[in-house]
Amino acid sequence: MIKAGIIGATGYTGVELIRLLLNHKQVELHCITSRSEKGVKLDDCFPSFRGETDLVFEDHDTQLLYECEVVFFATPNATAMYKAAAFLERGIKVIDLSADYRLKDTAIWEQWYGEKHASPELLVDAVYGLPEINRDKIRTAHLVANPGCYPTAISLGLLPLLENKVIDINEVIADAKSGVSGAGRKSALGQIFCEVDESFKAYAVSGHRHLPEILQTLQSYSDSELDLTFVPHLVPMVRGIEATLYARLNTREIDVQGLYTERYKDEAFVDVMTADSHPDTRSVKGTNLCRIALHLPGDSNRIVILSVIDNLIKGAAGQALQNMNIMSGLEETTGLDMIASVP
Amino acid sequence: MIKAGIIGATGYTGVELIRLLLNHKQVELHCITSRSEKGVKLDDCFPSFRGETDLVFEDHDTQLLYECEVVFFATPNATAMYKAAAFLERGIKVIDLSADYRLKDTAIWEQWYGEKHASPELLVDAVYGLPEINRDKIRTAHLVANPGCYPTAISLGLLPLLENKVIDINEVIADAKSGVSGAGRKSALGQIFCEVDESFKAYAVSGHRHLPEILQTLQSYSDSELDLTFVPHLVPMVRGIEATLYARLNTREIDVQGLYTERYKDEAFVDVMTADSHPDTRSVKGTNLCRIALHLPGDSNRIVILSVIDNLIKGAAGQALQNMNIMSGLEETTGLDMIASVP
Amino acid sequence: MIKAGIIGATGYTGVELIRLLLNHKQVELHCITSRSEKGVKLDDCFPSFRGETDLVFEDHDTQLLYECEVVFFATPNATAMYKAAAFLERGIKVIDLSADYRLKDTAIWEQWYGEKHASPELLVDAVYGLPEINRDKIRTAHLVANPGCYPTAISLGLLPLLENKVIDINEVIADAKSGVSGAGRKSALGQIFCEVDESFKAYAVSGHRHLPEILQTLQSYSDSELDLTFVPHLVPMVRGIEATLYARLNTREIDVQGLYTERYKDEAFVDVMTADSHPDTRSVKGTNLCRIALHLPGDSNRIVILSVIDNLIKGAAGQALQNMNIMSGLEETTGLDMIASVP
Amino acid sequence: MIKAGIIGATGYTGVELIRLLLNHKQVELHCITSRSEKGVKLDDCFPSFRGETDLVFEDHDTQLLYECEVVFFATPNATAMYKAAAFLERGIKVIDLSADYRLKDTAIWEQWYGEKHASPELLVDAVYGLPEINRDKIRTAHLVANPGCYPTAISLGLLPLLENKVIDINEVIADAKSGVSGAGRKSALGQIFCEVDESFKAYAVSGHRHLPEILQTLQSYSDSELDLTFVPHLVPMVRGIEATLYARLNTREIDVQGLYTERYKDEAFVDVMTADSHPDTRSVKGTNLCRIALHLPGDSNRIVILSVIDNLIKGAAGQALQNMNIMSGLEETTGLDMIASVP
Repeated sequence: MIKAGIIGATGYTGVELIRLLLNHKQVELHCITSRSEKGVKLDDCFPSFRGETDLVFEDHDTQLLYECEVVFFATPNATAMYKAAAFLERGIKVIDLSADYRLKDTAIWEQWYGEKHASPELLVDAVYGLPEINRDKIRTAHLVANPGCYPTAISLGLLPLLENKVIDINEVIADAKSGVSGAGRKSALGQIFCEVDESFKAYAVSGHRHLPEILQTLQSYSDSELDLTFVPHLVPMVRGIEATLYARLNTREIDVQGLYTERYKDEAFVDVMTADSHPDTRSVKGTNLCRIALHLPGDSNRIVILSVIDNLIKGAAGQALQNMNIMSGLEETTGLDMIASVP
Repeated sequence: MIKAGIIGATGYTGVELIRLLLNHKQVELHCITSRSEKGVKLDDCFPSFRGETDLVFEDHDTQLLYECEVVFFATPNATAMYKAAAFLERGIKVIDLSADYRLKDTAIWEQWYGEKHASPELLVDAVYGLPEINRDKIRTAHLVANPGCYPTAISLGLLPLLENKVIDINEVIADAKSGVSGAGRKSALGQIFCEVDESFKAYAVSGHRHLPEILQTLQSYSDSELDLTFVPHLVPMVRGIEATLYARLNTREIDVQGLYTERYKDEAFVDVMTADSHPDTRSVKGTNLCRIALHLPGDSNRIVILSVIDNLIKGAAGQALQNMNIMSGLEETTGLDMIASVP
Repeated sequence: MIKAGIIGATGYTGVELIRLLLNHKQVELHCITSRSEKGVKLDDCFPSFRGETDLVFEDHDTQLLYECEVVFFATPNATAMYKAAAFLERGIKVIDLSADYRLKDTAIWEQWYGEKHASPELLVDAVYGLPEINRDKIRTAHLVANPGCYPTAISLGLLPLLENKVIDINEVIADAKSGVSGAGRKSALGQIFCEVDESFKAYAVSGHRHLPEILQTLQSYSDSELDLTFVPHLVPMVRGIEATLYARLNTREIDVQGLYTERYKDEAFVDVMTADSHPDTRSVKGTNLCRIALHLPGDSNRIVILSVIDNLIKGAAGQALQNMNIMSGLEETTGLDMIASVP
Repeated sequence: MIKAGIIGATGYTGVELIRLLLNHKQVELHCITSRSEKGVKLDDCFPSFRGETDLVFEDHDTQLLYECEVVFFATPNATAMYKAAAFLERGIKVIDLSADYRLKDTAIWEQWYGEKHASPELLVDAVYGLPEINRDKIRTAHLVANPGCYPTAISLGLLPLLENKVIDINEVIADAKSGVSGAGRKSALGQIFCEVDESFKAYAVSGHRHLPEILQTLQSYSDSELDLTFVPHLVPMVRGIEATLYARLNTREIDVQGLYTERYKDEAFVDVMTADSHPDTRSVKGTNLCRIALHLPGDSNRIVILSVIDNLIKGAAGQALQNMNIMSGLEETTGLDMIASVP
């Protein structure tokens, strides 16, 4: 049994991670922490856990964390960067679900997150936790930076094209749509039901923090600069991300369907659907899957890729667990074999 | 491994049962049938099953059904009553999720369902599958009539009061609210998104088919006639039933909280919450649980009971599986240990 | 042209009132105030008003208010009670959409609202603004207390029964359901989309502030004490209240359908539907209407009344405007002739 | 008073048109027709009209239609093309909300709509009813083809760029999202609440009927072929279209904000918002407005245009009424001065 702890477990990402870890047969969830809910029973805060556990929210500095083999940070950005070293020094593995260790370039991080990075020295060994590209590095990593939700859906959707250099990198568009849970569990006016329900809008068109993260992943496959436009949108639903990706193939002669199928044939959590499918977010809700479908509309070289994930699972807690499985030498799919429910 | 089959597996109840059975470690889902989708792969019809199974919808008269130990009917009403006998004769257990064997009185059944009952002789041995009252009978039953969704939420919510004869049976009200999945997976105009979303209404106030079923269960605890008013409502959400139940205690001296806690203390799927709680349907979504909370507002003898379930699980497929576990001598909770997700 | 002002115009009730007043041909909306948005243009705060008006949120103490003939308070509770007198002294009519002047009994008000009433002396002349019972008093009133949303739906639904003393007053139940806008425009965690969407629950079962208000209205028709149980619920939709009301007729011989039809035949905003109808909240959304339908299920004396309103219009801003029309000698329906849209 | 008739008035477009015409002070809605609801009172079918009108659905061939000055077709595609001539011959103006007269090229129409066009001779004089480009022609038109919903949002969003030839026409993307009412009022399985709610997906990526319509409008501004990719998506909400449009400016030196502001400064129903705004569909719900905002993200020549409309109003019934006003010499905004409600 792997002893695990979660720091900052009252957000949606943290609560989902609690649920997944409680269902994981080879993990003992040793402690959960929260500054605001310190001392409160988990099931008093979230009645869905009634009868499942006696866990109580501990303070962030509880010694119980140091008894763990792996510690997850489900904290807001700019928290883990102050605390991760203490665990790493003791040989405790760290999986950070926030953005603190995702960007290799400190200057870019500081530009987008608006403050000085507190532990840039850890960035060298931090591994970006997208198993589909970094599985080997994750296996031996001590510090894993779990990817953002948009970057997961978009990177997996574009990867085979960039790896094989078959598109014009000056013309890539990621039009992405997210359920409201992506904004977290906080009482902001813009998030209340009556402001969000029955409406749809784009946001952060001038620039979203996930853009540099996507660029870092995808740029590595090209020598010249990738020109990617990323526009996120808010959908009146709880969970799910759909990314509609537009690129231009160098030639229409390429068998892109074959290329994607081959690229992901051994990936348990990437499902390349048959050509011309229209994956809906419901088909991955509650699962760690990314479903992808390819379209070549019209006669031009335009390719349209549809990529869907559950933002809280493959886009957060599930991928963190997948990383933990890899880091711990477990079967990668352990505790992640959920089937999306209908309806 | 128990070999199981599902007849009529394309409705929401049937699909949910498929999902639960695929997750059940001691069941092999041997076959699923559908008249309309005969020959179609399950995952072509429901992409959420991609990668999980190779099941194909068989015709209703497939011989594969006769190789099963247990057969579930997830068919529309008035279907199982023609087909159940064939299985029972061969010693195959039958769990009927439709209404065909729920009412002991054929006359009442025929009045509410509008046709002649085709196999009234089976009603004698049919057991009403509410484990919280009929567990022993279910254990040895060959034919189980799985309860309706409203009757499950309402009966569990009122049972301790009636068993203990502590209320005025002339004044019981069940104001129940259901998500739209309760109406099934069919293309009726009244069910399309734009007719249902952002609106709320009562329906079938003059009489709903679940009323005689509720009365049959609850009347058995009283000699005089129970006067129960049942009004169902439609909530713009997919899953969940909430029943707000009103009764008048014979005296305010009764410790109703203790009474409920004691009554359900050994029940894995009934959670009596602390007094004055307000259970929401979300806290049971995706689970087999019924959560109940008690209120004694004001100074009168009025008691208000709140009862919530997931209509497709404890109100249908999950309870069917619970019954199968009991009939098969398995641990009752096998395959039913889900935790509701947040959010 | 009637000069009107709105104090506290950034809540949902206030914004809806702005919209209605801008559409009213005989009103000039002279000023709107807000503490938090002072100096901000209305359409910068609410883009839906772009191109419609140049109004800017003024400070609460703006002199512009004293140039008005009528001033609306759309403030939180316990605000108007400090400020109303200043307007009344200058002969300016006041319509208070908050709860400050609704209850005649100061002790009860203080018990439910948790503080000392600041201007009890005004309660004597304050008129409860439910036109269907107080039209004549409203005509000459200087201070109108606009009813709460639940009390409007419930009182209109029960009034004919109580006026005619045809029910058992010891057994009245109001099971009411409201859209989320009833909770106002504020950033509370319990109101964010992911906490509310796809779930349903009862709340405040032990007691809701609207209970004493309902009792005050309905009790006046009976000498003995009315025993009314009121349970509010939260529906995952923006607007609308549905109240399902249960009572017991003294005798089934009464023509209740005729009684309601007769009672409301001259009321422009109460629609008694044909017997056995099921009004949905959508059919009154965006309008000042209350639609009512009656049911006599089973053979007992039980009567079930369904009553629906738009909580922000007949339950707040629309009724305030209706009161203004009456107080100003205008046609009562002026500016309130909206038809609910489909869908 | 203009006598108007609506053929096929039971769909969402037709019902919305009824509502708008009843509110229009200079129109008498003379008759409405429906094959399926012939003889049924309008308010029996749609209770929201109770108390507003005595209209009854007539048969399609009612003589009342010939007493009208203007007849609206709100019928499914391939209906108006058989019936329009009969009205035109009698000097009755026709506004067709279906697609029958939108495409000038019969071959393209027949390719996308799958049948032979029944009255191609009328196409010569049919005017495409987008007032912002065809106002003068509409003024004298006898047959107006009312634009589709997506084409309205997309064309208005791209028009100033194409008219001024400031973008690369080989790289235009329209990623559009629509509420479910765009699919009409019909009982299709894919439209029922449980199939649509809480999910998001792209559809018809390989080709949507609105593509040739968009191309016809926009191609006219360019000599070489426009390469436009159009991907529609389904949003779990009732009303609203948001189009996120991507193009590449020939040079970043252009003042696009000024260009749009100037282009639409006299348009009552196009609102060019301040730069970097994020219009939401809610801000135009229930109105005839199109709100547009421009973004120049990053340092490249990429421009992103956001365009929102209410698909049933500016995208259908409202625009039809706007066309009627123009054709009849009325003030263009008559009966269309609605303000979107909050929330």
